[in-house]
Amino acid sequence: MTHFNIAYEGKAKQLILIDGDRDHYVQRFKDDATAFNGEKSAKFEGKGVLNCAISSFIFEKLEAAGIPTHYLEQQNPIDMLVRKLEIIPLEVVVRNIVAGNLSRRTGLAQGDPIEPPIVETYYKNDALGDPLFADTHIAMLGLVDAANLVRIKETALRVNTVLRPLFADAGIELADFKIEFGIDAAGQAILGDEISPDTCRLWDMQTGESFDKDVFRYDKGDLIQAYKEIARRLDLSIASGN
Amino acid sequence: MTHFNIAYEGKAKQLILIDGDRDHYVQRFKDDATAFNGEKSAKFEGKGVLNCAISSFIFEKLEAAGIPTHYLEQQNPIDMLVRKLEIIPLEVVVRNIVAGNLSRRTGLAQGDPIEPPIVETYYKNDALGDPLFADTHIAMLGLVDAANLVRIKETALRVNTVLRPLFADAGIELADFKIEFGIDAAGQAILGDEISPDTCRLWDMQTGESFDKDVFRYDKGDLIQAYKEIARRLDLSIASGN
Repeated sequence: MTHFNIAYEGKAKQLILIDGDRDHYVQRFKDDATAFNGEKSAKFEGKGVLNCAISSFIFEKLEAAGIPTHYLEQQNPIDMLVRKLEIIPLEVVVRNIVAGNLSRRTGLAQGDPIEPPIVETYYKNDALGDPLFADTHIAMLGLVDAANLVRIKETALRVNTVLRPLFADAGIELADFKIEFGIDAAGQAILGDEISPDTCRLWDMQTGESFDKDVFRYDKGDLIQAYKEIARRLDLSIASGN
Repeated sequence: MTHFNIAYEGKAKQLILIDGDRDHYVQRFKDDATAFNGEKSAKFEGKGVLNCAISSFIFEKLEAAGIPTHYLEQQNPIDMLVRKLEIIPLEVVVRNIVAGNLSRRTGLAQGDPIEPPIVETYYKNDALGDPLFADTHIAMLGLVDAANLVRIKETALRVNTVLRPLFADAGIELADFKIEFGIDAAGQAILGDEISPDTCRLWDMQTGESFDKDVFRYDKGDLIQAYKEIARRLDLSIASGN
């Protein structure tokens, strides 16, 4: 018998300690959703199952492409076994198309293509509202060393190179996505967290319809149906019957 | 006789064309002050004279230290002859001590020392509220090429290396300052604009009192007296008698 303790409780996930195992966590996907720095929140039955399946599928594709991640295996419909990483408090955003705050920051129009894609870094700090950081702020606060920051940005673009065609083959435009990294036992920054419709902007290539958390942010329809559409287009069989 | 036309009207300065001279401008210092992206504005009689004198003095010190600027000479109490540059829409901020928006962005306390000093870049765009830009945004909008961006950041730190001890010798802490650059005829980014109490945070080393535009921003007292104190400490004789 294993004994579980929550090491970290996030908005949409838990990291659970495994008794007698100091090298791994169970990453559990919850049904909760929050937006606008927690101002808006709700629960969607089945979201955890969908995001765990989609995220596991994506991490397997990234590993197969030679990108190291914290992912080891999906254990059950809502649990993923992951390597334990030391958290780097950065939200790393890759953008292929202008959306969200980038339009307000730059004056570019929503939907404008970005060529080449860009990588942004935000300080993961709810109290401060996850502000944009330049490299100089990251260095000043000592969030991650310079060599790993280079590695993080390079990895972010490699992830984009794998995921954008993967979604395009499913008729979906990957407009942007947010990823997070942690430091492994060897001191290297490794991809962690999740990659799911909670953390990507996924647009139908024909209609422009959102199949991601913007459905919740902007009340665009049924979030679970949108996430199920992503799973369906990626040919995933979802354990939960509903 | 020369004929004047205004090439650029800023909040606190004008750039005036010189008839028959395509290589230079007259940079005229106005008495107007604005803050908080124009929300607050006022006129302070004598500010133009003070800033023209202080800025001329500082540009001469920078030129003497081998830093190329647009400055050629002070022509009269409010006019400076400058080289014509193609404007780069960036506000380049050097910070030695935490103040202003850096505290809100990072959670560091106002007054915390920053070691080594940092250089930030803001997009000079009133409609967007002069947002922070990382290098990637500068490249995306093509505001300046990569080589000149490196030159700008290096120059900004060199300016700090000259100015910080200059003010320290006058008992003043240079907490931070904003500078602007333009491209010269040879395609190189050169220091332009002004450096004055309008564009620096200048604190009395003993009392912490502000002798800069924060006096206006936060209604801390008499702005002209504060600027005069800077001129006095720098041993400048101001043309205007008042």
